[in-house]
Amino acid sequence: MAEEKKKSADPAVLQLLAKCESCEGLPTTMWDRYDAMQPQCRFGELGVCCTLCFQGPCRINPTGKEPVRGICGATDYTIVSRNLLRRIAAGTAAHSDHGRHIAHTLHALIEGETDAYSIKSEDKLKAVAKKVGITAEGKDTMQLAKEVVDLALEDFARQDENVPLTWLKTILTPERMEILERCDVVPYNIDAMVTETMHRTTMGVDADPVPLIFNGVKCAMADLAGEAISTDLSDILFGVPKMVVTQTNLGVLKEDQINLAMHGHNPVLSEVIADMADEMVDEAKAVGATGINLVGVCCTGNELLSRRGIPLATNFASQEAVLMTGAVDAMIVDYQCVMPSLGMWAQCYHTQLISTSNLCRQAGDVHIEFNPKTAKEDAKRIIGLAIEAYKNRKETDIEIPDYRETIVVGFSLEQIEEILRTQSDDPYQYIVDQLKEGKIKGFAAMAGCNNLKTCQDESHLTLAREFLKNDIMVLATGCAAGALVRGGFTSSKATQEMASEGLKEFLTTLGKGMGLEDALPPVWHMGSCVDNSRIQFFMTTLANKMGVDIKDLPIVASAPEDMSEKATAIGTWLVASGWPVHVGIFPFIHGSPLVVQVAELTARDVYGGFFIFETDPNEAARRLSNIIKHRRWKLGIDADEEIVYPTGETAADFFEETEPQKANTANGGK
Amino acid sequence: MAEEKKKSADPAVLQLLAKCESCEGLPTTMWDRYDAMQPQCRFGELGVCCTLCFQGPCRINPTGKEPVRGICGATDYTIVSRNLLRRIAAGTAAHSDHGRHIAHTLHALIEGETDAYSIKSEDKLKAVAKKVGITAEGKDTMQLAKEVVDLALEDFARQDENVPLTWLKTILTPERMEILERCDVVPYNIDAMVTETMHRTTMGVDADPVPLIFNGVKCAMADLAGEAISTDLSDILFGVPKMVVTQTNLGVLKEDQINLAMHGHNPVLSEVIADMADEMVDEAKAVGATGINLVGVCCTGNELLSRRGIPLATNFASQEAVLMTGAVDAMIVDYQCVMPSLGMWAQCYHTQLISTSNLCRQAGDVHIEFNPKTAKEDAKRIIGLAIEAYKNRKETDIEIPDYRETIVVGFSLEQIEEILRTQSDDPYQYIVDQLKEGKIKGFAAMAGCNNLKTCQDESHLTLAREFLKNDIMVLATGCAAGALVRGGFTSSKATQEMASEGLKEFLTTLGKGMGLEDALPPVWHMGSCVDNSRIQFFMTTLANKMGVDIKDLPIVASAPEDMSEKATAIGTWLVASGWPVHVGIFPFIHGSPLVVQVAELTARDVYGGFFIFETDPNEAARRLSNIIKHRRWKLGIDADEEIVYPTGETAADFFEETEPQKANTANGGK
Repeated sequence: MAEEKKKSADPAVLQLLAKCESCEGLPTTMWDRYDAMQPQCRFGELGVCCTLCFQGPCRINPTGKEPVRGICGATDYTIVSRNLLRRIAAGTAAHSDHGRHIAHTLHALIEGETDAYSIKSEDKLKAVAKKVGITAEGKDTMQLAKEVVDLALEDFARQDENVPLTWLKTILTPERMEILERCDVVPYNIDAMVTETMHRTTMGVDADPVPLIFNGVKCAMADLAGEAISTDLSDILFGVPKMVVTQTNLGVLKEDQINLAMHGHNPVLSEVIADMADEMVDEAKAVGATGINLVGVCCTGNELLSRRGIPLATNFASQEAVLMTGAVDAMIVDYQCVMPSLGMWAQCYHTQLISTSNLCRQAGDVHIEFNPKTAKEDAKRIIGLAIEAYKNRKETDIEIPDYRETIVVGFSLEQIEEILRTQSDDPYQYIVDQLKEGKIKGFAAMAGCNNLKTCQDESHLTLAREFLKNDIMVLATGCAAGALVRGGFTSSKATQEMASEGLKEFLTTLGKGMGLEDALPPVWHMGSCVDNSRIQFFMTTLANKMGVDIKDLPIVASAPEDMSEKATAIGTWLVASGWPVHVGIFPFIHGSPLVVQVAELTARDVYGGFFIFETDPNEAARRLSNIIKHRRWKLGIDADEEIVYPTGETAADFFEETEPQKANTANGGK
Repeated sequence: MAEEKKKSADPAVLQLLAKCESCEGLPTTMWDRYDAMQPQCRFGELGVCCTLCFQGPCRINPTGKEPVRGICGATDYTIVSRNLLRRIAAGTAAHSDHGRHIAHTLHALIEGETDAYSIKSEDKLKAVAKKVGITAEGKDTMQLAKEVVDLALEDFARQDENVPLTWLKTILTPERMEILERCDVVPYNIDAMVTETMHRTTMGVDADPVPLIFNGVKCAMADLAGEAISTDLSDILFGVPKMVVTQTNLGVLKEDQINLAMHGHNPVLSEVIADMADEMVDEAKAVGATGINLVGVCCTGNELLSRRGIPLATNFASQEAVLMTGAVDAMIVDYQCVMPSLGMWAQCYHTQLISTSNLCRQAGDVHIEFNPKTAKEDAKRIIGLAIEAYKNRKETDIEIPDYRETIVVGFSLEQIEEILRTQSDDPYQYIVDQLKEGKIKGFAAMAGCNNLKTCQDESHLTLAREFLKNDIMVLATGCAAGALVRGGFTSSKATQEMASEGLKEFLTTLGKGMGLEDALPPVWHMGSCVDNSRIQFFMTTLANKMGVDIKDLPIVASAPEDMSEKATAIGTWLVASGWPVHVGIFPFIHGSPLVVQVAELTARDVYGGFFIFETDPNEAARRLSNIIKHRRWKLGIDADEEIVYPTGETAADFFEETEPQKANTANGGK
């Protein structure tokens, strides 16, 4: 049992892994493959392996002995930086292509080419129009939507290098835009940034880690804009998430219903499936099921969870486990974080693995190319396949772990503002007051993936637990949110059990304000990974309210299980926006002390944000909590409080965060 | 001596390497670093190493033993294809960003923001306008130029996925466009293709090698358009290359002059330096030099060589050797293929290493950011630095190898057409006739890089020698052209010594037609690596004349020393255009038999083009010559000729090229 504990913090996952271990002839799990891959290539882990030209592969000796240069002459910092940039470019490409696809769907609606969609939130449309500088007055909904979507597509099309991305300006403080402009890292076109990054990292182009890393920052800022476009246009098309009570974990699968698991990231198809499922209940009943049960996986799951309360079955690492239940009639995948092993697992059961984007085909898939123009028909065909598959279910295969959590999710920024407005007409002032009173000490954004280099979800849960103990409110997205909902952090009960006194009072007050008997949950599920833009918008608005910048706010971010290249792009724009960002899995840069120093220290001087690389979640929580303490002290909130360093603290841990400030104070302050 | 022979086919390079070996304290050469890097990682060379997520690095066992899947479940073909696609995306990014920068320069000229440029070729402007469908009538030069450059930028900006890239349509036969449309590989926006390719290859997106590779083809077609834009706009701005007699090899450096070596790819700066150098001769004389000597390196060198007859010092692999002469006062780099070791070498001498693009900084550089708006001043500052540096030259450091070749270069397509017009009003019909008469059997495009996995230039020379023996005319670009000019292949003498009878007659006739006493050279230097678009336009025009497609023409392409990711992009669009493409260095795909099969065989079925991976240049030449023979036979030119397989030939070598056709013939033909 001790060994199994290491694999996942989720007992539902452990139950299924144990089940599979006792069966013959089943495919490997991700955990098996992780073990089989040991030991992993140390050159690769350190980022000092270069395959960017056919004279290679080259690998630098990270200990400083020969070879210290690749064949072309590239040193550790060049190789590490180039590899890092390509990851940022890939992450940016993924997030922003997602945004582009939503824009095209909205465009198809406006052009009258599809009847599968509608503008679900006119309020959001107006709010977005306003923030990007479009007047709503005198325009009907479709006209306004057209202007918004055209402006969004302009962020992919603009050829004037002097005009910044529209969506970037909306999501940063004026001070931040100034810093970025000063550093020449304000992108003008998202796609052009991806191209520039790929060009710059080609053999014989940039060898200097400083412009390389600045380019990485610029590309990551394009990622932020791409995410913001994704979130805004999704809200317009599919509605702004509202607080909703629902359930999560594998126990949400139903033995007597057609189980459709929707996996990936982009809600353009899954939203239509959710619309169409109701219409097909009779067909489901005709094959003996009592209904159609929709569940989500990964970030498509988070999108559906937030907007419709559709239960989230699980997060990234346990996507195979969804199939291991034997109860899934169809798993529908759009794109991103879809494991190529799913086909193997689907084939062990009656499950149909249905791919729907030509961007993301899988071995063993049935491919139904999704097109916004034929979305309803596509959705019906997909549901039809699931209904057909149900007939082939084998009762003996089925094992649905009896784990499900009741959760409160749907914390869009609009929802949060509505909650705060129950206390004050000025919701952000209310937050400022609560911060000043110390009811809440600060905010921790928990984001990112699963990564089997550590026990699934465990670090997410540990960090959140520590934050809540310290009056730090947790805002969660993506697979971090997936971990925290399943781990029991998004209920009133969690507030009672885990929140410190101030936080509990804050959440109880807000719960009562909303007419609830209980406190709000201590972790607010804010959506999928592109919805990190919601968190950023939240903090930018708060900073503007306080007349400071994100770099001054008592906030931290953490991706304790970073896995995807998308996480690298997110982490980079967070740092460049002024966030302290903890990363729990070393991101292939430690082969260059210089690059690590830039990430940990130089970034702080330039942007006010910085990376903290720390595999131990308790240590990470301690450092992050201290940063919040320190930032409160710098803001003058807790000016009198002496920061007590726990025994065993090394000075280096805080030096950059605290010492210069102390020095300034000694000299009479700035 | 035998050992040195292995390093380079160029005696000038060998002389300098020998000089450096005898000195103490000098930095490593690329050859030293190549040796130090042995043995290279076999996983990387086979393409089965994946670092696309932080659960990795993963490496598949290429022998079929465990592990056969990465942690996420990706198999060899998924990993190999994804890595391949990223190389294509990088190559496309590099070529097309280059095109974008030329477009921006032209734009600055049109907007009156710079006095450093002019429209050097109105004829080319009109020709380009015509082929992209812009009427020239009633428009002045600047207005026409504006329309052309706006349309070029539209290929980076277009958001309508149904409209193909303008520049792609201009450079393919109608049949080819149809094939590409059928395969859904016609791109609409160059940058968006780079983004899509990066997105598709992100963790958990495409796992299927077929759509992955098709996407690679689509991205490579965007690369072709980017190259064509680069060539067309460069010709408009800097003039269309004309035949010119000049010199090459390291002996073109001059002991008594200020030596400026211009290296990289984009001519926007080096053209202005060439303009300004004349104005600064007095300053050069003031420091004791007799003048300013401009030389080129790599593809910036090829651009200057083609348009101005500025001597080419050397190609990629021996860029360090240029500095080893101790006679270079400044090496000016723009971007691409610039070795990060140059700074070390520059610092050994008085040489200034001047970087000019913020995309391409180097350790030890002096950075003078080049801007089209201040181009003249930038150029003067750069030349001024070289003049200053000259004062610090040490006579004892100087060793200029006494090797220089007299060469005839400048074979733009316009120049070729002019040459052919001396024989016929219908130049392409003349080519057809010559092909039919067998004076020339076909064309070989020789392109690509240097790669120290083989002896510098040797394979280029061997292949060209074999082609010329077989009446195959050689068209060369990039570092292949750099090898062939230095190797003595671009003179009348070469025609006398190396060309077979038919080819000799063809070239002598053309030479006389041009009013020369001697034959034209047997290898036509057609420009830099983006100028592969010239070769493609040539063959498309020829195919249109013959009413066939590129896949039917007796043509082959070869990159015997492929090194850069750009070469992967070029090779891919050549294959997808119907070219047989030889590659002499294995391109990190042999870890997936499936991907290799697609490249060698499936591509042939779909596109008519295919890859040949062969490290032995003699064997490659034999196979490529046979393909030309076979294609002539298929065209009915040599219908009676029986194709004789040399002893020891394996059936597999030709099966796909010849057997199906034989079968069809046996059945009465198609």
